[in-house]
Amino acid sequence: MTTWQKARTARDARIDAGAKVAKGKIVETGDVTRLLEAVIRPGDRVCLEGDNQKQADLLSAALLAVDISKVNNLHMVQSGVVLPEHLDLFDRGVAKKLDYAYSGPQSARIATMLFGGKIELGAIHTYLELFARYFIDLTPHVALIAAVSADRDGNLYTGPNTEDTPTVVEATSFKDGIVIAQVNEIVDKLPRVDIPGDRVHFVVKSDKPFFVEPLFTRDPAAITEGQILTAMMAIKGIYAPYGVRRLNHGIGFSTAAIELLLPTFGEKLGLRGKIASQFALNPHPALIPAIESGWVEQIHSFGSEVGMDDYIRARSDVYFTGPDGSLRSNRAFCQVAGLYACDMFIGSTLQIDLKGNSSTITTSRIAGFGGAPNMGSDPRGRRHPSEPWLQAGREADPDSTPALRRGRKLVVQIGETFGEKNVPLFVEKLDAIALAEKLKLDLAPVMIYGDDITHIITEEGIANLLLCRDAREREQAIRGVAGYTDVGRGRDKQFVQSLRERGVIRRPEDLGIDPLDADRSLLAARSIKDLVRWSGGLYAPPSKFRNW
Amino acid sequence: MTTWQKARTARDARIDAGAKVAKGKIVETGDVTRLLEAVIRPGDRVCLEGDNQKQADLLSAALLAVDISKVNNLHMVQSGVVLPEHLDLFDRGVAKKLDYAYSGPQSARIATMLFGGKIELGAIHTYLELFARYFIDLTPHVALIAAVSADRDGNLYTGPNTEDTPTVVEATSFKDGIVIAQVNEIVDKLPRVDIPGDRVHFVVKSDKPFFVEPLFTRDPAAITEGQILTAMMAIKGIYAPYGVRRLNHGIGFSTAAIELLLPTFGEKLGLRGKIASQFALNPHPALIPAIESGWVEQIHSFGSEVGMDDYIRARSDVYFTGPDGSLRSNRAFCQVAGLYACDMFIGSTLQIDLKGNSSTITTSRIAGFGGAPNMGSDPRGRRHPSEPWLQAGREADPDSTPALRRGRKLVVQIGETFGEKNVPLFVEKLDAIALAEKLKLDLAPVMIYGDDITHIITEEGIANLLLCRDAREREQAIRGVAGYTDVGRGRDKQFVQSLRERGVIRRPEDLGIDPLDADRSLLAARSIKDLVRWSGGLYAPPSKFRNW
Repeated sequence: MTTWQKARTARDARIDAGAKVAKGKIVETGDVTRLLEAVIRPGDRVCLEGDNQKQADLLSAALLAVDISKVNNLHMVQSGVVLPEHLDLFDRGVAKKLDYAYSGPQSARIATMLFGGKIELGAIHTYLELFARYFIDLTPHVALIAAVSADRDGNLYTGPNTEDTPTVVEATSFKDGIVIAQVNEIVDKLPRVDIPGDRVHFVVKSDKPFFVEPLFTRDPAAITEGQILTAMMAIKGIYAPYGVRRLNHGIGFSTAAIELLLPTFGEKLGLRGKIASQFALNPHPALIPAIESGWVEQIHSFGSEVGMDDYIRARSDVYFTGPDGSLRSNRAFCQVAGLYACDMFIGSTLQIDLKGNSSTITTSRIAGFGGAPNMGSDPRGRRHPSEPWLQAGREADPDSTPALRRGRKLVVQIGETFGEKNVPLFVEKLDAIALAEKLKLDLAPVMIYGDDITHIITEEGIANLLLCRDAREREQAIRGVAGYTDVGRGRDKQFVQSLRERGVIRRPEDLGIDPLDADRSLLAARSIKDLVRWSGGLYAPPSKFRNW
Repeated sequence: MTTWQKARTARDARIDAGAKVAKGKIVETGDVTRLLEAVIRPGDRVCLEGDNQKQADLLSAALLAVDISKVNNLHMVQSGVVLPEHLDLFDRGVAKKLDYAYSGPQSARIATMLFGGKIELGAIHTYLELFARYFIDLTPHVALIAAVSADRDGNLYTGPNTEDTPTVVEATSFKDGIVIAQVNEIVDKLPRVDIPGDRVHFVVKSDKPFFVEPLFTRDPAAITEGQILTAMMAIKGIYAPYGVRRLNHGIGFSTAAIELLLPTFGEKLGLRGKIASQFALNPHPALIPAIESGWVEQIHSFGSEVGMDDYIRARSDVYFTGPDGSLRSNRAFCQVAGLYACDMFIGSTLQIDLKGNSSTITTSRIAGFGGAPNMGSDPRGRRHPSEPWLQAGREADPDSTPALRRGRKLVVQIGETFGEKNVPLFVEKLDAIALAEKLKLDLAPVMIYGDDITHIITEEGIANLLLCRDAREREQAIRGVAGYTDVGRGRDKQFVQSLRERGVIRRPEDLGIDPLDADRSLLAARSIKDLVRWSGGLYAPPSKFRNW
């Protein structure tokens, strides 16, 4: 019989070995590396918790310090490769193989290491896709996670940054794996239980709170007039005619501009209650004015955002909160919500090619996918109708049998034709393809595929790709909003004009928008300080965003 | 400030009202209806837990008994409409509107009530899609759930049938809703904590265990030789050439036949370790021989299956289990796994049309969707490659740039050309379309769309729709495996022959399969008793499956 419980027996042996450096479940800070050496085996699949926000930083430092004769060749299976230590692990030989989703700040170094063969790459995933594999073929043997506090039974309070933790713990602990948590403090009674203690094997008190990146804070002061113009076009040319109520926003300044125009430009158009009322979204500070103006009914969040705790607590009608009053975020559920319950995804990208494929990858930077491809794809398993979804489906395929015609998710790319440092947004060929060749990848890391994109917005206009009937129309529609980039100048002017007459392309003036009106005075908040004011002093921005 | 915490204030008032019939969190069985009258408000969104397996049956009876002057016009948002009481609620006026996913045994009555206008239909969903909406626009005010046991703090043990509970509780409790659990017993210490008590407001001890349907038990004695033939074709013609390791099976006899052929026919072909090693699947008894023969590495489950508890406990290397040794199922995560981490879905249906659209709906029965459309659709947000997925992508689109060519999920329909009572599987027009017209639905309830299906298997052959280049080829490929049905007889014989020459259609003989070999002696188990024997006596089938 025992031959069918090998993993359980091995798990118990690991716990016994770990127990020698623990008191009950509690391990002293100085003993963490010894704990890891005791419970981790060479070649293990290990999830070192970390995503685009929270980081189990004490545990990553401790793992880096192991004796590599004891712990080596690990297969890291984790959302984020974000801290320098995450890559140092490969340099030192502690880890060998990597399956991950996001590598924002390490995008240049991870590219170098991949080129140099320092990392054996499994695949680059979306968050939800990697979570899916945790249950099928990438189940961690050991999970190293982060929480705010623990009690002596190992029950955990993750506070506002619950994020990936429940998913990682469920996959690991219920498949005979070991869960080790770093916590900011050990207390007698938790404010709430986010993770039951019987799923957690060891707890380490960290000398400082786990690191959280304020990734979703956009300073309104940095929003340009070009971004304001595209935001006006988005609201009037897409949100309004489709009646988009349930949606997700990307993290860039373009969508922050939309958030800040809702209570001004949107209000003037009489759109309150008709658009942008339910979000799958982190607690973006830029959404505070819209919330205070009564635009937003409900927000479910992947994670939290630094400085938003008191505001969230005081606005519990809008956010998901626990019995302790603080945010309950959950990346897995919010990604599912973004996939299946939202009618629109809108975000920015670095490059768009002539077919509409887009990518945030350059030949020297691999940023990973995060969540965008999941939310920015047409969910073909969806079966419930909604007006925006049906309308998009009608536009894409007007001649089919209505009862058999699925709707379409609105997937919108918004940006200026020339981005930062004057780099063109539109290209003939994505850098992602050169990268795939260099790394011998089966697939170029495309963020959103052209056949999923429905609209592209630039300062020159909106291209509605749903209305394009063939490849040539798509290409010319894209060229037709690509401005003075090479791609834009390569347009067939007459053809583009005919697309405009059909409404495939709409210029600002076709939408009744005067580009000269795109003024910063339209922003409901023009600075971080304005956001604090809107929040009644409840929003406490991180110091790097304070200039007062 | 309080105006932004209306829901929390209302929630606290509900708890206070409920507390009057409770002792702490515990409510006596006889007081349940009074509790519901105290905490539920007219028009509330209510999730009465129930899916295709477990049912909160005590709570559904109690809800049916409320004074309808106090509780009425509820909006039910729940996975399953399965018990008669679920529909009685609408007859009595307790409930008015319905959003759901599955209605297996009530499919005839729900159709009648929808036709009669007794129910205001929101939409029919997949499970995962409804869960998604719980976080965006269908968040329950009250959740009525079922667990095995509770302690006095409201911590819950759901045992092997965890299923929807964590998802329902998370959406409800963290958005200021009320969670009421029926439990089989109240204990001092739980075997494990599936739901932390601070998310649970009231607990009622039921006089009998909550109902669980053994929906995934298929008696091998009922498997036909036609099903054995299609199973042989599936293994040799699809599993083997694509090398499908990660997959989900439907619940019919056709896929049960596949499970029972792995250790015989599959073994002879030398496929062990090469196919069918990781599943998103309930603990199907029919998979026991394959597990015992060393075929299966890992299974993650939506729910459990009656009688499988001891077997699962003894085979923890294969299943996800808790510290108590019993199964941990989780429908939301398993659906995510089926969507994003599996390379194939294979299942049966009732009707397939000339475009490959399929449906389990007839004009007088509305069975709902359950999980099939989610798993039986091409997940366009997927970014990790695998060999089966890439191969399917190459077949579908051989001429595109490889680095920009996504793979395809294998979505296979398997069945006999004439099903039960000699009803043809293939039809010119789905009954679902007539139903949509009759009910004025925006969308016909199509289970799997033709553009997502990759293969159709019947006793006449396999049609590989990935290789079809236009609508005519698809139609003739479908007709070419439709046997003596009207659709099959309407084929263009010469065209079908040319498709066969191209390998679009493969007959049993093209696969080296002699239909005369499709004999019941090939089944690893020919009866429920055989399954018990394979399990070493650990599988304890429900009495309705015992004839000894």
